[in-house]
Amino acid sequence: MRRDTIYDRDLDRNPANHQPLTPLGYLDRAARVFPDQVAVIHGSLRRSYAELYARCRRLASALAAHGIGRGDTVAVLLANTPAMIECHYGVPMAGAVLNTLNTRLDAAALAFCLAHGEAKVLVVDREFSGIAREALAQAGRSLLVIDDDDPEYAGAGEALGTCDYEAFLAKGDPEHDWAMPDDEWDAISLNYTSGTTGDPKGVVYHHRGAALLSLGNVVTGALGQHPVYLWTLPMFHCNGWCFPWTLSIVAGTHVCLRQVRAGAMYALMAEHGVTHLCGAPIVMQLLINASDAERRPLPHRVAFFTAAAPPPEAVLAGMREAGFAVTHLYGLTESYGPAVVNAWHAEWDDLPADAQAAKKARQGVRYPVLEGLDVRDPETLESVPADGKTMGEVMMRGNVVMRGYLKNPASTEAAFRGGWFHTGDLGVKHADGYVQLKDRSKDIIISGGENISSIEVEDALFKHPAVAAAAVVAKPDDKWGETPCAFVELKEGASADADDLIRWCRGRLAAYKMPRTIVFGELPKTSTGKVQKYLLRERARAGSEQES
Amino acid sequence: MRRDTIYDRDLDRNPANHQPLTPLGYLDRAARVFPDQVAVIHGSLRRSYAELYARCRRLASALAAHGIGRGDTVAVLLANTPAMIECHYGVPMAGAVLNTLNTRLDAAALAFCLAHGEAKVLVVDREFSGIAREALAQAGRSLLVIDDDDPEYAGAGEALGTCDYEAFLAKGDPEHDWAMPDDEWDAISLNYTSGTTGDPKGVVYHHRGAALLSLGNVVTGALGQHPVYLWTLPMFHCNGWCFPWTLSIVAGTHVCLRQVRAGAMYALMAEHGVTHLCGAPIVMQLLINASDAERRPLPHRVAFFTAAAPPPEAVLAGMREAGFAVTHLYGLTESYGPAVVNAWHAEWDDLPADAQAAKKARQGVRYPVLEGLDVRDPETLESVPADGKTMGEVMMRGNVVMRGYLKNPASTEAAFRGGWFHTGDLGVKHADGYVQLKDRSKDIIISGGENISSIEVEDALFKHPAVAAAAVVAKPDDKWGETPCAFVELKEGASADADDLIRWCRGRLAAYKMPRTIVFGELPKTSTGKVQKYLLRERARAGSEQES
Repeated sequence: MRRDTIYDRDLDRNPANHQPLTPLGYLDRAARVFPDQVAVIHGSLRRSYAELYARCRRLASALAAHGIGRGDTVAVLLANTPAMIECHYGVPMAGAVLNTLNTRLDAAALAFCLAHGEAKVLVVDREFSGIAREALAQAGRSLLVIDDDDPEYAGAGEALGTCDYEAFLAKGDPEHDWAMPDDEWDAISLNYTSGTTGDPKGVVYHHRGAALLSLGNVVTGALGQHPVYLWTLPMFHCNGWCFPWTLSIVAGTHVCLRQVRAGAMYALMAEHGVTHLCGAPIVMQLLINASDAERRPLPHRVAFFTAAAPPPEAVLAGMREAGFAVTHLYGLTESYGPAVVNAWHAEWDDLPADAQAAKKARQGVRYPVLEGLDVRDPETLESVPADGKTMGEVMMRGNVVMRGYLKNPASTEAAFRGGWFHTGDLGVKHADGYVQLKDRSKDIIISGGENISSIEVEDALFKHPAVAAAAVVAKPDDKWGETPCAFVELKEGASADADDLIRWCRGRLAAYKMPRTIVFGELPKTSTGKVQKYLLRERARAGSEQES
Repeated sequence: MRRDTIYDRDLDRNPANHQPLTPLGYLDRAARVFPDQVAVIHGSLRRSYAELYARCRRLASALAAHGIGRGDTVAVLLANTPAMIECHYGVPMAGAVLNTLNTRLDAAALAFCLAHGEAKVLVVDREFSGIAREALAQAGRSLLVIDDDDPEYAGAGEALGTCDYEAFLAKGDPEHDWAMPDDEWDAISLNYTSGTTGDPKGVVYHHRGAALLSLGNVVTGALGQHPVYLWTLPMFHCNGWCFPWTLSIVAGTHVCLRQVRAGAMYALMAEHGVTHLCGAPIVMQLLINASDAERRPLPHRVAFFTAAAPPPEAVLAGMREAGFAVTHLYGLTESYGPAVVNAWHAEWDDLPADAQAAKKARQGVRYPVLEGLDVRDPETLESVPADGKTMGEVMMRGNVVMRGYLKNPASTEAAFRGGWFHTGDLGVKHADGYVQLKDRSKDIIISGGENISSIEVEDALFKHPAVAAAAVVAKPDDKWGETPCAFVELKEGASADADDLIRWCRGRLAAYKMPRTIVFGELPKTSTGKVQKYLLRERARAGSEQES
């Protein structure tokens, strides 16, 4: 029972002392304080913060005039373009919910998202008009389709609909008096998970979490005023880790980029003095392996935030040499993107390169705006000992965890069982409290009753000088239950055979962890550079069936 | 009427996705991530974040064992010492409310605060034991008195009570499992206003606001990781502008300082590589006017955050020359300290010195964590035009505005009339939206029906080379109603008489704004360097009565 105290009387919330947390106000502030600061660069286009804000208000106003309001879903199928940034503000300024669709999905998956999210509007870039047409046909929904014809896109594709993005904006009011959300718990965006297992799940973000993760990005990234940010991370991925909103806090410049190519990245970094960029390991590979013709000298050390997989030692060395400072982040769609950081200790700079890489490979510690991070027994929810060995499930709790899965109370309840968000990632807690992933629950290999971390086997393979990438999955085995099956991509011009790699792993891995099968070839990857292990698992299973 | 949408179903708050905002978790994180980082320096004392956190948990545990809990007030009468930092965490970790008392108050005022705030505990530094004894006698409350005998204090004073701070901590549990607040709206601290008019008012802060202003400080101050912060600003003043909590976000080092003296400041800055400090203009004067013996070379450009009065041109030039970068902030006790910043534009660096000073003198724009800042008509609440001329009252709204005044619903209601916090400061809005104070409501001089800004008259006087400080107040006048009366402090060794200053002001001020009376002598100041205008008003009134 709560005791009434002197502080519980006559000190209530009112509009003067309580306002909903939302990232939308950050843009209003940037446009008023730094109206002439360059907000968006795209090809030869330059837009100031005053212009960006006016366009976002036009968008909100035009959507409202079309009857779009609180809780309506506005889907977009866009590259990293100015329109994509504008939708991050204009859509929620209308009270609506932004659903950024993954441009690499097939028509059936897109149709599922449009139908499940009950989208009332679709904004589509001409590049994706073909797949969008198919998806719309399959979704069987009548919705407003708005075509964006980006001048920087010269490829194929037709306008789909009845409404052009620029014409739509022209109808809007640049001084539109948009409203703050009724409640900071209101939805701001909807992000579908990749759906490697079953139908995609619709992750719902709220204004409070988006506002806080954006502050967390500034603090964790030590952004300073007016950073210049290169858009290598797709904005359809966790709302670009909330960076579309983050940059307004510090009046930074968005440098748009439709396609992640080494030459274009170096050119934009050099031309605009880029200070920060984010990306999966595949982006680092591109930067390191760029040809001399593609490379340009960097204006200063550039901060690179990576996630999705621990950066290997060779990649870290290559990035350092190329002029980047790499920070390793970790998170999921359910945590607004990164909510965990490999917080670096200055004294680790004195360690040998391999020991530094080992430190850097750990996912790390919570963002200051994530209230809880732990490794726990997935059944009992007991915290595992911080011994660097005992495996458990990585769990989070706090204000940068999603509201839940849209129209999926069973999955939501399972994800939040016991008051913690269950990430599905397995890991350990080191003596210093840093968390390290050992595997996805479904990626663990159980051989002869022993658990094998596929990441550990991949690490051993990756250290071989000829190996460009490696992915290890379970292969069904009559005797052992499962055995590790390795898929290996070799570096261009390098050669190695299965025996070479087996020899290499000996002494690096316990006998039971040794890969029993090695398959060479290019690895299937998602648009964000994640290896699609479910495809490899299918291949391994098929191979096993052929054998038996 | 709110329409129910798909986002309003099955997506509720639970412990996994909703936690109370509080600055307390920042310390927990710093202690776990950077346990060996130096958190506190005081004389020869060094304490790590692990040690600081353990001591705060001991304090919380010992308070809880003494029966202190949610909504109980714990008052402290402390200098800027390690104990003061510990109380900022240990007290709210027990669920209690920290009331930092101004050490320059007299016994009657302290007694008022103890009684009004219903303090159950008083932690007192030996230096202030004399005044504390008197205050306790007058307050007529029985409370637990805890004596802190700081080894860095060698002056007079006796232990008052039955309990020593270190002994009290020794009884506590360093692993105490403290609880997060029930609700982020719960009170974290109580700060009495200076009470220049009537009894002090008890300003109540909540966990949400303290957490957000702390993030705002990191963003606004571009703190980076591991700043070294010198405690020149009293922590009894708006909880040291929330910096006791702010530093934990970035695992910074607190450099304690009992007394603000130029020699000690330079020595500590040089020895510990201080990066940031805060203070009223008086602190800048001390730094600029330091003797060669007191000065030490600074390790790098040091960031200085000032508030309370606009920094004059000569002070800015002196600070730049001495190696400081000055940022001008503005706020009140009611806004957790600074909530407004003179956000600097790089292009202003190219302006002449006087134009730069004019830009820097403006209070500026809202922190990213303050949702609203405006200049409005105090009666109609209409926004004044952004013309740099039309006066109105500066108003704020947002999450870093106090809950209200303790046990004072009438004052709370008046302060929040119309859904805005009325600061009592009068000012204008410039064309670029920057706010500039022209006066406190009560400092305006109304002469022959014309409003005169006392700040404008002070500015004119201050530019005279012989003037060290100037304060202008209204003097009752039979003919004009009021006339400006100037109190002037001359620089050491400089000389000027009333005629010199009148001549100086001619051409700089409109005739009706000219000071009619000039009084020379030292200005009475508060402990934070604010001129005590109410004393000057009394003197001006007395002078006027003698004349008539």
